[in-house]
Amino acid sequence: MSVIILQNNYGKSNVRVMKVTKNSEVHEIKEMTVGIQLEGDFETVHTEGDNRKVLPTDTMKNTVYALAKENPVKSIEEFSIYLAKYFIENNKQVSSVTIENTETLWNRISLNGKPHNHSFVSGGNEKRFTKVITDGENISVTSGIKDLLVLKTTASGFENYIKDKFTTLKETSDRVFSTSIKAVWQYANQDVNYLKISNDIRKIILETFATHHSLSVQQTLYETGKNILEECKDVSEISITMPNKHYLLFNLGQFGMENNNEIFIPTDEPFGLIEAKLKREN
Amino acid sequence: MSVIILQNNYGKSNVRVMKVTKNSEVHEIKEMTVGIQLEGDFETVHTEGDNRKVLPTDTMKNTVYALAKENPVKSIEEFSIYLAKYFIENNKQVSSVTIENTETLWNRISLNGKPHNHSFVSGGNEKRFTKVITDGENISVTSGIKDLLVLKTTASGFENYIKDKFTTLKETSDRVFSTSIKAVWQYANQDVNYLKISNDIRKIILETFATHHSLSVQQTLYETGKNILEECKDVSEISITMPNKHYLLFNLGQFGMENNNEIFIPTDEPFGLIEAKLKREN
Amino acid sequence: MSVIILQNNYGKSNVRVMKVTKNSEVHEIKEMTVGIQLEGDFETVHTEGDNRKVLPTDTMKNTVYALAKENPVKSIEEFSIYLAKYFIENNKQVSSVTIENTETLWNRISLNGKPHNHSFVSGGNEKRFTKVITDGENISVTSGIKDLLVLKTTASGFENYIKDKFTTLKETSDRVFSTSIKAVWQYANQDVNYLKISNDIRKIILETFATHHSLSVQQTLYETGKNILEECKDVSEISITMPNKHYLLFNLGQFGMENNNEIFIPTDEPFGLIEAKLKREN
Amino acid sequence: MSVIILQNNYGKSNVRVMKVTKNSEVHEIKEMTVGIQLEGDFETVHTEGDNRKVLPTDTMKNTVYALAKENPVKSIEEFSIYLAKYFIENNKQVSSVTIENTETLWNRISLNGKPHNHSFVSGGNEKRFTKVITDGENISVTSGIKDLLVLKTTASGFENYIKDKFTTLKETSDRVFSTSIKAVWQYANQDVNYLKISNDIRKIILETFATHHSLSVQQTLYETGKNILEECKDVSEISITMPNKHYLLFNLGQFGMENNNEIFIPTDEPFGLIEAKLKREN
Repeated sequence: MSVIILQNNYGKSNVRVMKVTKNSEVHEIKEMTVGIQLEGDFETVHTEGDNRKVLPTDTMKNTVYALAKENPVKSIEEFSIYLAKYFIENNKQVSSVTIENTETLWNRISLNGKPHNHSFVSGGNEKRFTKVITDGENISVTSGIKDLLVLKTTASGFENYIKDKFTTLKETSDRVFSTSIKAVWQYANQDVNYLKISNDIRKIILETFATHHSLSVQQTLYETGKNILEECKDVSEISITMPNKHYLLFNLGQFGMENNNEIFIPTDEPFGLIEAKLKREN
Repeated sequence: MSVIILQNNYGKSNVRVMKVTKNSEVHEIKEMTVGIQLEGDFETVHTEGDNRKVLPTDTMKNTVYALAKENPVKSIEEFSIYLAKYFIENNKQVSSVTIENTETLWNRISLNGKPHNHSFVSGGNEKRFTKVITDGENISVTSGIKDLLVLKTTASGFENYIKDKFTTLKETSDRVFSTSIKAVWQYANQDVNYLKISNDIRKIILETFATHHSLSVQQTLYETGKNILEECKDVSEISITMPNKHYLLFNLGQFGMENNNEIFIPTDEPFGLIEAKLKREN
Repeated sequence: MSVIILQNNYGKSNVRVMKVTKNSEVHEIKEMTVGIQLEGDFETVHTEGDNRKVLPTDTMKNTVYALAKENPVKSIEEFSIYLAKYFIENNKQVSSVTIENTETLWNRISLNGKPHNHSFVSGGNEKRFTKVITDGENISVTSGIKDLLVLKTTASGFENYIKDKFTTLKETSDRVFSTSIKAVWQYANQDVNYLKISNDIRKIILETFATHHSLSVQQTLYETGKNILEECKDVSEISITMPNKHYLLFNLGQFGMENNNEIFIPTDEPFGLIEAKLKREN
Repeated sequence: MSVIILQNNYGKSNVRVMKVTKNSEVHEIKEMTVGIQLEGDFETVHTEGDNRKVLPTDTMKNTVYALAKENPVKSIEEFSIYLAKYFIENNKQVSSVTIENTETLWNRISLNGKPHNHSFVSGGNEKRFTKVITDGENISVTSGIKDLLVLKTTASGFENYIKDKFTTLKETSDRVFSTSIKAVWQYANQDVNYLKISNDIRKIILETFATHHSLSVQQTLYETGKNILEECKDVSEISITMPNKHYLLFNLGQFGMENNNEIFIPTDEPFGLIEAKLKREN
């Protein structure tokens, strides 16, 4: 018997870095959590413990900080592309580099309606992220938003579904709809404004969620994706995930009281999980 | 030998409830996580397994939902007072009721600058909370804000401290200062506008953090508390906690590069923890 | 312009269920967290809000509990296969069912060396999991272990790696090695004893970790996979993930003290991440 | 108006340290997370930003590592006492030092029934902790166990409780009882074997949980505390917390099926929370 290595990769995860840019009194910050993964000619590392082709993950970490100094870090996408190119160009034993980069969001503190020069308040759990892959010739970039948590108190229903012997859910034309949206998209071309596209997509997601009368999570998800593909010409494909975070109607009837969609039990689990990938067809 | 029960209490924790109020097309929501704890004459429950004086924690949970229907739930404080009074008045075996209530914050989705009637986006990790205690005669109310995460890129230093044989920290007149603020306050009188006071305190916290030149976390903490006590006459006492969430300067010098307060390592642990309780002296 | 749905799926996640089996005074428990995902003919759900082909995720949840009653739930694999077959057979609009199932582990409390009949203590964070996919004809089963956290204080080194301008790591022939192991395997045939294979694999992982002198995480990972493929004939392929949870040597030299691999800083991030997939070649 | 500082304290939290002791081929490890808090004459730090009396929290962190080298670290209690004494003796401006120390538990990997010399597997979520406070003259030590998660499938009921208009819970003489136990105790004298007492208490907790027929969580809690005070003469007082982690009976009746205490829904929230403090009366 012999054993074959079908696939292998290694790298450093959760390298946290913040770049502060002070070109004027108005400071800019970019806080990121970076992961690097390398694939390549690493057979003998596994089989013989021969480390001569191994770039230590500690060095990858150091490289992130050094390159964050060199690069302006305007967007996580541009910095991640810069990183990916560095690693592929400086390591001949490597056939593929993957950079994953998640941005921790900060908003300027607003004093009397004016954004402060150098003070920030957390942007919450919501995050922007990107994944860049290169083999030295081609480069692929995907971007995303995740943990965008929203809730609406009406204009959402769920009816006319299959009933079987295990059905207990009651049909409703008016329910609370809450979801923590994740969207991941690919670009139709490479010469794009990453920050603007991300902001545009976020705006369309919120707008669609607020204004679309939802007959199901699926329908709202599709409407969201369709609106993004129609309005953002630089986006070729988008995957959207919408967990259905259930707010259950509490049964006040057992106490002789009415519950006119007023009193709900927020729950974390179980949750519905709805996903789809949409593509523009020109 | 015999064993004495020095103290005992029991109740239900993490009762999650959302109240939706639909007095007009503009819906209001209040999402809360409630805890109830009772103290009283429960000796024989422990020593004999006699449950005749036990109000089940399941019933406490049901009561939260029923009372959320009855009460307008304008603020977590008013609802918690209503709950506390209900439990003390309806349970003669109980000598003290404690209600803890934490609000999950939601902001209206804004479309073209206009807040939406019934759609909301998460307010992030930041939370409002209250603790109400009553023995049936007196009632104490404390309120608070927690997980208010802020960061400033300058106007903060730390110098002139003690040096001993284990000192390695370098003095600096310019560092990144980040902290996740918690503030808990008591009221000078009972007839107050809970929501307004909380909003005022949050505003002063952000304003002080942004504008105060910090010589230490302690000094910023004291300045924050002083400003609150000076401006909020309804507040008699305030405790503030400021963990120092360190952003460490990465040593670029080892690569022959300069780090002019540009490249930092955000860290979660260890962290400084600074706390003080301030009181107004008239 | 038109929009195409490239792919879609939906279902229920985090359905928690415990089955207690009382065939004798010795009770058996199986605590599971189940996820169900369906793919199929759901185009009009998205595009028209037509729910007539939708099996509600609430019904999926109910089905898990009902089928946990019917099935003996000897292993998460057998129960997940039973669930997958139920959903594919009872839903003509569905082309593929995926069941993910994670077991929360419990150990019997041992009193004077004797395992108790009906009392259990947590098995910690470590988990067993499975993924079952069926299209109604074929069925694929993968199984795994995750969060198996181990640490060794010696017999591990890392030397002879690439040095470049960003290298600061010092070579060492003796370091602390800690990793939280995840292993996922496929079966060479369908007629297997799932519980025994999982126990055997866990035993080999621990044995290899303890006894193998490690020249790199990669080498230990490969050795582990090789030993599993050699000893477990029912396993055809295995993927192993070994995050390198760094224990950093604290620099006592700055205080004139020696650190002979005694005093370490445990860290959570950043961490190395090493992965490989191995296959037996007969 | 003037502002008074009623109370203040500061220090470092979450200082993680592991000590490896290699007196023979059998290595010992102790992984700890340490917190230090100082109180004292720090008025002008707050009011004037005068740091001349401030021992930086960074220095506290360094001191933990240096003293972990000097001290044998046989138990978290002995190491924490050593730390507390160091800080109070070397800082005249300090009136009180508090050390909190939590141990991350590791078990030796067992190969063919034999514990390995230098390889360990995680002890799970369960933790040992201590709190040491000194003013330079007196020293107080409390110790504890937390996150000791247990479950029993029978020999537990809950009946004869109060029924009111919000009662929906059904009485039962046979339910699943699961709780994550926390116990914190004080010592009757200072000359004790900390490790032995902690092990004895853990053993009594598990034994009582397994063998006691429970009429309520309160009764089991009291029985546990009573047994500890009776058997551990060095313990003078003990506080026990038992959250009631509900396993709800799933309603199979709605599908015409029976549920003879077989199929449960494990839930995280809400949960019952039962606490009591017991003292020996000689």
